[in-house]
Amino acid sequence: MSRNVSCYVASLNDPSTIASEIDQAIHECYIQSRPVYLTLPTDMVQKKVEGERLKTPIDLAFPKNDEQKEDYVVGVVLKYLHEAKNPVILVDACAIRHRALDETHELIKKSGIPTFVAPMGKGAVDETLSNYGGVYAGDGSNAGVKERVESSDLIISIGAIKSDFNTAGFTMRTSQLNTIDFHSNYVRVRYSEYPNVRMNGVLKKVTQKMGKLNIQEGPKPANEIPASEKSTGPSDTVTQAWFWPRMGQWLKEKDIVITETGTSNFGIWETRFPADVTAISQVLWGSIGYATGSCAGAALAAKELKHAGRTILFTGDGSFQLTAQEVSTMIRRDLKPIIFVIVNDGFEIERQIHDDPNQDYNSIQPWKYKQLVDTFGAKQGTYDTFTVKSKKEIEDLFANDKFNKAEHLQVSLCIFSL
Amino acid sequence: MSRNVSCYVASLNDPSTIASEIDQAIHECYIQSRPVYLTLPTDMVQKKVEGERLKTPIDLAFPKNDEQKEDYVVGVVLKYLHEAKNPVILVDACAIRHRALDETHELIKKSGIPTFVAPMGKGAVDETLSNYGGVYAGDGSNAGVKERVESSDLIISIGAIKSDFNTAGFTMRTSQLNTIDFHSNYVRVRYSEYPNVRMNGVLKKVTQKMGKLNIQEGPKPANEIPASEKSTGPSDTVTQAWFWPRMGQWLKEKDIVITETGTSNFGIWETRFPADVTAISQVLWGSIGYATGSCAGAALAAKELKHAGRTILFTGDGSFQLTAQEVSTMIRRDLKPIIFVIVNDGFEIERQIHDDPNQDYNSIQPWKYKQLVDTFGAKQGTYDTFTVKSKKEIEDLFANDKFNKAEHLQVSLCIFSL
Repeated sequence: MSRNVSCYVASLNDPSTIASEIDQAIHECYIQSRPVYLTLPTDMVQKKVEGERLKTPIDLAFPKNDEQKEDYVVGVVLKYLHEAKNPVILVDACAIRHRALDETHELIKKSGIPTFVAPMGKGAVDETLSNYGGVYAGDGSNAGVKERVESSDLIISIGAIKSDFNTAGFTMRTSQLNTIDFHSNYVRVRYSEYPNVRMNGVLKKVTQKMGKLNIQEGPKPANEIPASEKSTGPSDTVTQAWFWPRMGQWLKEKDIVITETGTSNFGIWETRFPADVTAISQVLWGSIGYATGSCAGAALAAKELKHAGRTILFTGDGSFQLTAQEVSTMIRRDLKPIIFVIVNDGFEIERQIHDDPNQDYNSIQPWKYKQLVDTFGAKQGTYDTFTVKSKKEIEDLFANDKFNKAEHLQVSLCIFSL
Repeated sequence: MSRNVSCYVASLNDPSTIASEIDQAIHECYIQSRPVYLTLPTDMVQKKVEGERLKTPIDLAFPKNDEQKEDYVVGVVLKYLHEAKNPVILVDACAIRHRALDETHELIKKSGIPTFVAPMGKGAVDETLSNYGGVYAGDGSNAGVKERVESSDLIISIGAIKSDFNTAGFTMRTSQLNTIDFHSNYVRVRYSEYPNVRMNGVLKKVTQKMGKLNIQEGPKPANEIPASEKSTGPSDTVTQAWFWPRMGQWLKEKDIVITETGTSNFGIWETRFPADVTAISQVLWGSIGYATGSCAGAALAAKELKHAGRTILFTGDGSFQLTAQEVSTMIRRDLKPIIFVIVNDGFEIERQIHDDPNQDYNSIQPWKYKQLVDTFGAKQGTYDTFTVKSKKEIEDLFANDKFNKAEHLQVSLCIFSL
């Protein structure tokens, strides 16, 4: 079964080959960013293997492209790039997963081309760059972005994943005749495909050789609160339109931001990040429950790496209930994430998308979320909990120095309307 | 991927065939007791299909065996059964899953042959029958059972699954030369295989035609407390050797008993059930966390069927933490299971099995288990919680009428030593 989705499969039955099979699995997994599968029989666990190879690190460098082929592709890309009157760059998740962000940033900075991200590409690009233009997701795009991208005569698309949520329900209206696609294992210029060419080398040479381009400026998102939302009195309930740009003002450089598929991930499209923010989501699969476990993993990694930024989770109550016990793991590992649980009494996004908002299957059991931390055995004084039901209370929370320092596990309950 | 493990796979793309494909999936799933897989595209959900077929129930009867073949196999079985000096019957999980329990019970009752169950066969057989002899699991068998089964000259094996946990680590010492295997799709007599013969028809005819047999009695398990364990003062900590036979005395007819892989399932081998007890486990897969969700499902089914017995879960703290939120589902659906959480500070069974009992990965975060019910939003007065740390406290609990009636969701914490 796993062979169908894995780029390397091995059954570890022979101690003389086990070490090289494990090394190869790590190599393929890293280079191809795809699953590998190892079968480890119980009776192999205590066998001895040759340890000499541990002295030689596994070579994790990407294999170089065929140079003549790469140069040919660079030439084709440059031809269209020089002809373009108003090119744009569109960055998506595979630029992150296949590690092409350095080459992507060089191109963005040197060219000045207006740059947009798909929802799963949030965090790939330094959003403080002056040519960063916002999120492009068809009908779900930031203000002005859909018009700008779809009127462009050349889209430099880097690492696209055109899935349902990532395209706001396949509402992107772009033409392949105006598109150059960069991927980990091929480049496509209009309809001409160049297989087995990794984007990294091509992007690097294109940036080196491109010279002067025709640039027309794009929109400049700035976490602006819409005029209709500016009132923040105690009776003003929190709205999506207000919260996400306001939260963007509160974020700091180097923060790690995890958003669950649903209200949180759709919401964060309206947040412009500070520099060096790491964003994590997986709307490709739409596997709710992922974000809370992901937060535990990210916070643990950040702790081990002594990362300066905070780890911040945004999830809804419906998703949170699926993997809430990861909060127990956070307590056990002494992690300090900030957790926002958006409590809207169930699967609110489903109520909004589908016909009948009153279906019982979108409702959930009401938990005492703040009590959960104590129930999971956290000691008094090692955590804080907050309930914020209005814009005023969120303003107070964002102004709370202790909260902002994130020296404790912190659970905030946000009661949102939509 | 699913095709590799499914007995029927369909992608529902054509409204003119969707209804028959769904019916066939249900039919194959039920008859073969194997997974089926249906792909249901979003744009098919609201298509109209012909409803006329709903007036004809799906035929869920097993297809009959070829009569001549069946009679031939019956003849071979009877030959060896009549020659046997001290036959035994061994019943396992596939007798339950493939619905051969009626035919199995007829054979057990009419023949008087000493009858044993494998661990996953617990609950398949009425354990109050005078010829019920206990659990056979190689070195893990009930007292006297290993000797009795392994000295038998004919083992009537019905629905065997010879997996690791189910055979106490492959310690069964039986010979295929003394074995007749009954299965859903074949019968095997010694080494002679008869494919495509379902056990049900063969067992029925064997019972009808067998006449007089040679019977030697087997052991009679009776939930007896070992002499060394009989003291139940307040300072006597709970032990495996004491708890499971004592719990067997407390069980009632028609109870549904779910045991998690680990301490609970290994323990319940020493419990003799009252009549009509349903036992649920899946040690075949060893997927801990299963039992708590299974308890929610069983309790919901019991409620819908107005089943008279109680639904009772035995799980350990390590397993419970994996799917604890199913308790929230129980609260939401107003279910009344009795839940025993055996708190031994982590993966105790792993500490016992493996070399080093002090490995940190067998430890878990200590939760306030009793508080969990309140945290999950259960209303005061709709549930009870108990902590029982000694034999005395368990005796008091088992003597508590309110507890025994199970009119509330009840969580008991048992602190066990081993």
